[in-house]
Amino acid sequence: MSEIARLFASDLVVANLGSKIFTDALELQGRRAIQVDWAVPCAGDEELISILKTIRTGEVGVGGKKVALQDLVDRANAEALEQINLSHPFIVGIGKAVDEIPGMEKGLILHAGPPVEWERMCGPMKGAVIGALIYEELAKDESAARKMAASGDIKFEPCHHHAAVGPMAGIISPSMPVWVIENRHSRNRAFCTLNEGLGKVLRYGAFSAEVIERLKWMEEVLAPVLKDALEIHGEIDLRTIIAQALQMGDEGHNRNKAGTSLLIREFAPSIAEGPADAKAKSDVLKFMHLNDHFFLNLTMPAGKSSLDSASGIENSSVIVAMARNGTDFGIRLSSLPNKWFTAPAPEVEGLYFPGYGAEDANPDIGDSTICETYGIGGFAMAAAPAIVEFVGGTPQDAINFTLSMYDITVGESKNFRIPSLGFRGTPTGIDVTEVVEKGILPAVNTGIAHKDPGIGQVGAGLVEPPLACFEDAFKAFHKSLTRRRKKR
Amino acid sequence: MSEIARLFASDLVVANLGSKIFTDALELQGRRAIQVDWAVPCAGDEELISILKTIRTGEVGVGGKKVALQDLVDRANAEALEQINLSHPFIVGIGKAVDEIPGMEKGLILHAGPPVEWERMCGPMKGAVIGALIYEELAKDESAARKMAASGDIKFEPCHHHAAVGPMAGIISPSMPVWVIENRHSRNRAFCTLNEGLGKVLRYGAFSAEVIERLKWMEEVLAPVLKDALEIHGEIDLRTIIAQALQMGDEGHNRNKAGTSLLIREFAPSIAEGPADAKAKSDVLKFMHLNDHFFLNLTMPAGKSSLDSASGIENSSVIVAMARNGTDFGIRLSSLPNKWFTAPAPEVEGLYFPGYGAEDANPDIGDSTICETYGIGGFAMAAAPAIVEFVGGTPQDAINFTLSMYDITVGESKNFRIPSLGFRGTPTGIDVTEVVEKGILPAVNTGIAHKDPGIGQVGAGLVEPPLACFEDAFKAFHKSLTRRRKKR
Repeated sequence: MSEIARLFASDLVVANLGSKIFTDALELQGRRAIQVDWAVPCAGDEELISILKTIRTGEVGVGGKKVALQDLVDRANAEALEQINLSHPFIVGIGKAVDEIPGMEKGLILHAGPPVEWERMCGPMKGAVIGALIYEELAKDESAARKMAASGDIKFEPCHHHAAVGPMAGIISPSMPVWVIENRHSRNRAFCTLNEGLGKVLRYGAFSAEVIERLKWMEEVLAPVLKDALEIHGEIDLRTIIAQALQMGDEGHNRNKAGTSLLIREFAPSIAEGPADAKAKSDVLKFMHLNDHFFLNLTMPAGKSSLDSASGIENSSVIVAMARNGTDFGIRLSSLPNKWFTAPAPEVEGLYFPGYGAEDANPDIGDSTICETYGIGGFAMAAAPAIVEFVGGTPQDAINFTLSMYDITVGESKNFRIPSLGFRGTPTGIDVTEVVEKGILPAVNTGIAHKDPGIGQVGAGLVEPPLACFEDAFKAFHKSLTRRRKKR
Repeated sequence: MSEIARLFASDLVVANLGSKIFTDALELQGRRAIQVDWAVPCAGDEELISILKTIRTGEVGVGGKKVALQDLVDRANAEALEQINLSHPFIVGIGKAVDEIPGMEKGLILHAGPPVEWERMCGPMKGAVIGALIYEELAKDESAARKMAASGDIKFEPCHHHAAVGPMAGIISPSMPVWVIENRHSRNRAFCTLNEGLGKVLRYGAFSAEVIERLKWMEEVLAPVLKDALEIHGEIDLRTIIAQALQMGDEGHNRNKAGTSLLIREFAPSIAEGPADAKAKSDVLKFMHLNDHFFLNLTMPAGKSSLDSASGIENSSVIVAMARNGTDFGIRLSSLPNKWFTAPAPEVEGLYFPGYGAEDANPDIGDSTICETYGIGGFAMAAAPAIVEFVGGTPQDAINFTLSMYDITVGESKNFRIPSLGFRGTPTGIDVTEVVEKGILPAVNTGIAHKDPGIGQVGAGLVEPPLACFEDAFKAFHKSLTRRRKKR
């Protein structure tokens, strides 16, 4: 019997591409049919499809030989993934922002997300700037702070432009203590403030007296006690703690209970040994214990220091930053490291605290999407089934979020593994080409800030980044890829 | 069309009971066949089947009315489960065994498992007894200790007879510090030593100088520092910590990394605040930090205090203790609380430390099977996929262990939930009738001790308790059930 005759002699099964109603109709008639998970590339956009075709099938001359563009890109992306996987962030210090962060100076305030001026800042970011100016004793009260912020005397720049990251409003002012993280692989550093805890806190836009007092206590007690402890203990291996935390139900963005616990047990003996008085040590240990998000401000700079080592790789379409200032959502690509691609910040679908609803919510805000860019957070939700109590959904949803991210990443983490997926590495290295081709957006879970200054957190949930900035980045990537090639 | 005609007019599917080769044969021919998961009750033992029939279908007169025996048993078992679920163990103190444990006295040594005299004790238990006599300064060295232990001057009784539990050899001597756990629901207490850590330790039968020195340090530094801290902190809610730990990858028997972390962060602020010097506090925090099993000695008495409140319920076939002395494996039933049903302790299937193998292993030993009796440990393995690195197998095996335990338990925990099973309560309240009827043995994971005194742990793995003691308990349960009924 010929191959083809044999095929038709066997039972036939229908495989359907496109609209699922054909599959459904067959199944209603008792026939087996397989619905193929396929969608039109780039949602059918002709310009994008044409770019995609160039990248996937085009060739360029390199050293007299024809080379497939896709091969160049694949090699660059493999290098980016390798850099992320080799990265090994350690806590190496705690210090004042102005002493530690390159380019930090008096009158400069760093903020989350892509660049934004005072006028375009959202409510919670304005609130946090007001709080920072009061904390720095540059303004006496809200109205003086508003005036000063609008005067042009204060410079605003993104944390990301200074090797730093900040959760939510992400405000860093010169006197604030910061974690100093060093990536032992590539020797670059990253910085982040210490987490303030829950409730009324600066990062959610609150600036009342209790917020400022807490910031002062963090500067005067928390940071010195931790600094002493760190000197006794020696550098702390963050990658190992994050890896362990992912075996313990954390995903590193909105669930950091295990990471915080592991950090406390690592730090506690050295805190107890340090020179501070017993009350200060006890207060520091209590402050960390009462805040399960304390570790978030370490997963973030761990991610930042790792992604910075994957930044600036020619021909790589890997995303090295996703960040929001509450007004815009922005991304940066490895091969175009100094350029932001932005679109309006989206709304967060979430669970709200009692008394609050979607009408109170600020659009998506914060640098904490560095977690997802790093392959944890929303990308590691399968490791954290209990996260659904915080952001909504079921444990199966959490697993599905992670599984779908493998479709848009270059590869898998060699460090961060998910027990429930048989210890598979987390999806790592977001490829902007895959995002645009498949229309699958990075899965992000996040807190929700009130839209007005001075209030704080009102909920938490899931957010879909805006496709537009990925499309723009994709177009720019294509241009740079072909332009560079022509120059040679 | 008649019902029967309609049935035969539809496509038929074969359901096969018994040998799976019939299902396989049909599938080879391309037919659908369902293999029903069914086995002959009581493995076909006629005596047991006849007892089972009496329990399942028999009636007795109660207050002039006929009542089904099974209804009486079901009600009693529901009450036992309710007691376990209502139980709420707290850490309420730390003290000397002789001061805290009822009936503890000079010259008395408590051990794990059912009763056993010196002559029948296994190697590691003898080693631990030798160590305890040296620690108590009742003997100078091994040979003096052996003589004393054999002399009859030392009394040996099970921990379980004194509201206590002990891991592995489970030796408790009068001077040892113990955790005092109170079940706030039923006001009964339970006791356990403080965990010594890994390596050469008394509970695995080691008794060298370093072992004795560590025990002294635990008595002189660890216990006082923790006692002070507990007084500052106030009682610690163990049930809540265990529940959280099960959301963080622990199962509470062989994986206690999360429980230990949560305990440290809860304790640390009060330790730092206490009156001891900085070095002692730091050493205590380091000791706990370096031992992920530190929390095991708290899950065990939490279980003991909860199961004791479910003990002594007439007509209940729920198992309230499973324990091994390294020679025998024994169980106790709620309705026959003072009787042990024993069989030879089985071997453990496990992973061995380098240089050791099955030929070095002592049979199964320790009271830590109180964990499984409580609905955690092996019963909660689905919560702890990473446990397979320690005891062998795959994450799916861990899930299957838990799923199969629902077949032999009265119900589910209302406190301990498993994220990966959609937050289902752990299987709780082992019913000896179900065990014997289905031939499904409780899933236990455990450490492996060297068979000789003085060596220590050589591995960890999974163990199947011996069916014989469950069968004996089942027969005795049946007798007590029918005898009591006749008296009325």
